[in-house]
Amino acid sequence: MVGEPLFDRLCLLGIGLIGSSIARVAKQRGDLARTIVAHARSAATLDRVRELGIADVVEPDAAKAVEGADCVIFCVPVGAYAGLMKVVAPHLAPGCIVSDVGSTKGSVVRDLLPLMPPGTHLVPAHPMAGTEHSGPDAGFAELFDGRYTMITPIPGGDPAAVEKIAEFWRRCGSMVETMDPVTHDKVVAIVSHLPHLIAFTICSTADDLAEETKEAVLKFAAGGFRDFTRIAASDPTMWRDVFLNNREALLEMLGRFVEDAHALGRAVRWGQAEYIEDRIQRGRKIRRGLIERHQA
Amino acid sequence: MVGEPLFDRLCLLGIGLIGSSIARVAKQRGDLARTIVAHARSAATLDRVRELGIADVVEPDAAKAVEGADCVIFCVPVGAYAGLMKVVAPHLAPGCIVSDVGSTKGSVVRDLLPLMPPGTHLVPAHPMAGTEHSGPDAGFAELFDGRYTMITPIPGGDPAAVEKIAEFWRRCGSMVETMDPVTHDKVVAIVSHLPHLIAFTICSTADDLAEETKEAVLKFAAGGFRDFTRIAASDPTMWRDVFLNNREALLEMLGRFVEDAHALGRAVRWGQAEYIEDRIQRGRKIRRGLIERHQA
Repeated sequence: MVGEPLFDRLCLLGIGLIGSSIARVAKQRGDLARTIVAHARSAATLDRVRELGIADVVEPDAAKAVEGADCVIFCVPVGAYAGLMKVVAPHLAPGCIVSDVGSTKGSVVRDLLPLMPPGTHLVPAHPMAGTEHSGPDAGFAELFDGRYTMITPIPGGDPAAVEKIAEFWRRCGSMVETMDPVTHDKVVAIVSHLPHLIAFTICSTADDLAEETKEAVLKFAAGGFRDFTRIAASDPTMWRDVFLNNREALLEMLGRFVEDAHALGRAVRWGQAEYIEDRIQRGRKIRRGLIERHQA
Repeated sequence: MVGEPLFDRLCLLGIGLIGSSIARVAKQRGDLARTIVAHARSAATLDRVRELGIADVVEPDAAKAVEGADCVIFCVPVGAYAGLMKVVAPHLAPGCIVSDVGSTKGSVVRDLLPLMPPGTHLVPAHPMAGTEHSGPDAGFAELFDGRYTMITPIPGGDPAAVEKIAEFWRRCGSMVETMDPVTHDKVVAIVSHLPHLIAFTICSTADDLAEETKEAVLKFAAGGFRDFTRIAASDPTMWRDVFLNNREALLEMLGRFVEDAHALGRAVRWGQAEYIEDRIQRGRKIRRGLIERHQA
């Protein structure tokens, strides 16, 4: 037996890894929305969504897609929010809840809030889930199971709208946390954005090596390097936008990291065994912290 | 039916993750050595090896351990080679093959070759296999299955000794490659040592954050960060020694990496979207290279 759907008409703007995973959960459960509308820019993506049968309505026109929806979720790269919002804002239904799944939250408030029509509600959200794959075929209904979704409520916003989005994510299998956008952006800068920036960097450093060494790198990648390349396989447009839209926090963390890398490199140069061991021990301490919290 | 054993008496100096894995393969197969001798410094390790029953002889005295052995393999951190070699060299049997499993090869030639008695043979080797766990309980017989083992033969050394060590590793399940120590140290600097240095660094950067942020990092580590902490959980003494004994190549790769990280950070600061995308695309190219070579 299926419970009362949370929304009547759910519109997903963008239907890649995250959007198509939401569509799949919604189809499977039946209690997220009565009707699922999917919008994407590319005809190929829309065709594929039709083939997959994961949406009830497939709509190439963003303005039409949001019409009559009581919930609209931005699932495009965060750099595309402002442009897309200009198109859809005049067509949002009264009372509509606008949410998103982007990895940066300060930029979302900056780009969406000023364009929200009176009587509509913005509830920024970030499901901390993903894989290195992208596109509508990459999604799966279990993606959000047991993963955190962070909600960054707008000060003075509608608590009922926040609770509906929280319930939405709980039904998707997520554990929901609320925090302010500044804290959010700082935390994801170190747990996610900086690791991705580092992984992209070391892979491109390897790509710049002389041909002979590069061949050997590919052959003997099984060390720590292989794990970095997996992270580095993620969607370029999405990550470009994340970096550009979490600039301050990311550069702050990158600065700290590079200082620490220099200090460790200096200790290696001067043979400071104790310093090196101390830094390695701190890494293990963090790992133990994760294991204790069942996050490892 | 078991084939003719390759060695009569195999002595493992050090019996942690790698040493105990070798002991386990040797016990299981029966065609690596007739007798397995295990030496370790700590009484607790030796007791545990006795309990595990993975060696025929457990010997706390290194000089006695190597007596009569036709193959001695150094399985201690590379920083301990020189000191241990001084102790065992006078006790090596004529014709004995001395090998090792260290992650640096230039330092092994530097530390062991001058002390080799006439008529004994040095064959440095490096099985590119491991986990983040350490100690005799961490080993398992399948550790080397399908993994590369690099041998860096000594110029003018005995080809028969090299072939015996190559066959040893093939019987352990490894694919064997030979190369010179300088190339070896450069390749592992980028595929393994730099990734570990980076992982240790980002974990200690996280450990330095304000208490509140650190708590959030531990809670929401599921992004790319968690993968880095796994790498960073590896044995501190071993990695300290690796860094110090591959100083030149590691600092060269760290220098390149930090330059590239700065360049990417600069592009983020100045909003250079194309540059960022290009660097991300290079990372994906490396990943595709791995997938084509079935190394991903």
